[in-house]
Amino acid sequence: MGNLPKLLYPTSLKLDISSLEGFSVDLIPYDVKAPFPDQATDAEMLVTWSNSRDNLKEAAGRLGNLRWAQSLSAGANEIQSAGFASNVILASGSGLHDHTVAEHTLGLLLNSARRFYEMRDYQVQTKWPAHLGGPQPDRPANSFTTLRDANVLIWGFGNIARALTPSLKLLGARVRGVARHAGVREGVEVFTENELPDLLPGTDVLVMILPGSASTKHALSTERLKMMPKHGWVVNVGRGMNVDEEALCAALDKGDIGGAALDVFSTEPLPAASPLWKARNLILSPHAAGGRPQGAEELIAHNLRKFRAGQQLKNII
Amino acid sequence: MGNLPKLLYPTSLKLDISSLEGFSVDLIPYDVKAPFPDQATDAEMLVTWSNSRDNLKEAAGRLGNLRWAQSLSAGANEIQSAGFASNVILASGSGLHDHTVAEHTLGLLLNSARRFYEMRDYQVQTKWPAHLGGPQPDRPANSFTTLRDANVLIWGFGNIARALTPSLKLLGARVRGVARHAGVREGVEVFTENELPDLLPGTDVLVMILPGSASTKHALSTERLKMMPKHGWVVNVGRGMNVDEEALCAALDKGDIGGAALDVFSTEPLPAASPLWKARNLILSPHAAGGRPQGAEELIAHNLRKFRAGQQLKNII
Repeated sequence: MGNLPKLLYPTSLKLDISSLEGFSVDLIPYDVKAPFPDQATDAEMLVTWSNSRDNLKEAAGRLGNLRWAQSLSAGANEIQSAGFASNVILASGSGLHDHTVAEHTLGLLLNSARRFYEMRDYQVQTKWPAHLGGPQPDRPANSFTTLRDANVLIWGFGNIARALTPSLKLLGARVRGVARHAGVREGVEVFTENELPDLLPGTDVLVMILPGSASTKHALSTERLKMMPKHGWVVNVGRGMNVDEEALCAALDKGDIGGAALDVFSTEPLPAASPLWKARNLILSPHAAGGRPQGAEELIAHNLRKFRAGQQLKNII
Repeated sequence: MGNLPKLLYPTSLKLDISSLEGFSVDLIPYDVKAPFPDQATDAEMLVTWSNSRDNLKEAAGRLGNLRWAQSLSAGANEIQSAGFASNVILASGSGLHDHTVAEHTLGLLLNSARRFYEMRDYQVQTKWPAHLGGPQPDRPANSFTTLRDANVLIWGFGNIARALTPSLKLLGARVRGVARHAGVREGVEVFTENELPDLLPGTDVLVMILPGSASTKHALSTERLKMMPKHGWVVNVGRGMNVDEEALCAALDKGDIGGAALDVFSTEPLPAASPLWKARNLILSPHAAGGRPQGAEELIAHNLRKFRAGQQLKNII
């Protein structure tokens, strides 16, 4: 065993390690919040999940033989910013969170449309929210009360959007997408950001699933918020930095948009001083959409095979 | 026009009345919360929606020529208990609420699994619900945290269940049903109530969509609650009377079940003295699942045609 190349796997999640046997590598568990033990420092391969900043920094500085770092996060920001040498292949866990983020997003959309958050505010005061129940107008114009016939625009049309779209369509929503490249994907018409001025005014709910990068910072700006209808909702499950939170707060409190459900924030946990906590029709979810990789073993095994064969890995950053 | 048979339609919802023209009937609007005007009392046909008890009582007593009363409610309790003569055909609005109730039910299921109600309780206190976000175990045993691989049992497997099932399956749930007759419907195995002792112990979430009747009163009893696993949730969008609320409260507070999301209650609005308001993991929704008939004109037109032709109407009670 001593001469086999070492793969370090995290103990921060339950992995079926037996499915990784038979690759002639030495599988070594490690604690993602602690320093690496000496016998791990010559590892060639590292799998990361919810590692502490210090741990990743140590990995970049001390694992001198490292050639491949496989994150299980959908986003790549953490391992990208850890300072790994340029000869280390970095791969993300893109795809492992599609189902779970899509489900959470659907939940946030229904919470928004059906006003469960407002019902809760009444319930805790022992008040019956009569205005939200009983006979209601069906799909009134200029409102977001159901996904049926709602115009949903998904900004960031990747894996997660693909996983979400069938549920939205089944509930009767009209789905369109925005991405770097226009085209038709999974039967959804996808536009570029250039079309946002035409798309946003007719959007009942904007779902943001953008990655975090310099080019997506404050993608949802004052200017773009102004393009949305007054009843339009924003659901963000991408990165907090994609939304100008100050502009969003102003739009919510002035009634320029209908509401917002946010799973991500520019600073997490959200600081107590943020006006978002009490903003009108603001639903807060504590970065809970993903956080549960599904199919991690298959991705690790696939990339391990490719790595050993000197072939192209999946999800390279 | 004076000699045409009269159809009274309610002004309590927006109906596209032009779609009912051409049937050689006199279409007369009426106020469902007020006494009938004299010129309406010889009507043969009545459409009801959210009528006051007094109005329905007057309809039963005073509309002497009435031969057909068409409710737009999914349930038939109101027009059944109004005291119409035995020669009046009663028909319900079954089917008009399938989409909207299914959507709301899905929302309650996701609210339960993803704990949005608990996130709200934290948000209003400016507290970050850290335990609900960040890295989480994926689908831990004996818990209801996602619809993926969840065992969902739908008790009352009719139109609404049929509308809900594809969404549940798409999210990866395992769906089974309970109804008066066993069989396979829409690819779902449906059992009779006799099988509940075998079904309930393996149920992660029980969705109740039962009608209100003597035979369904307190269908969810102490005895049946005891059959559920400790993490099992109950979602009721049928009738409040189907649940023994006292028994449910006890089960919630003792931790015998995981939680409950109720859209219906034995008394509505829920009285301030009810312990349900503050019961552990109890989500209150104010009879908001339906209340928005969809496709009412098509049903009225269909039954109007059948009625005039002396043929069998749809949704006869």
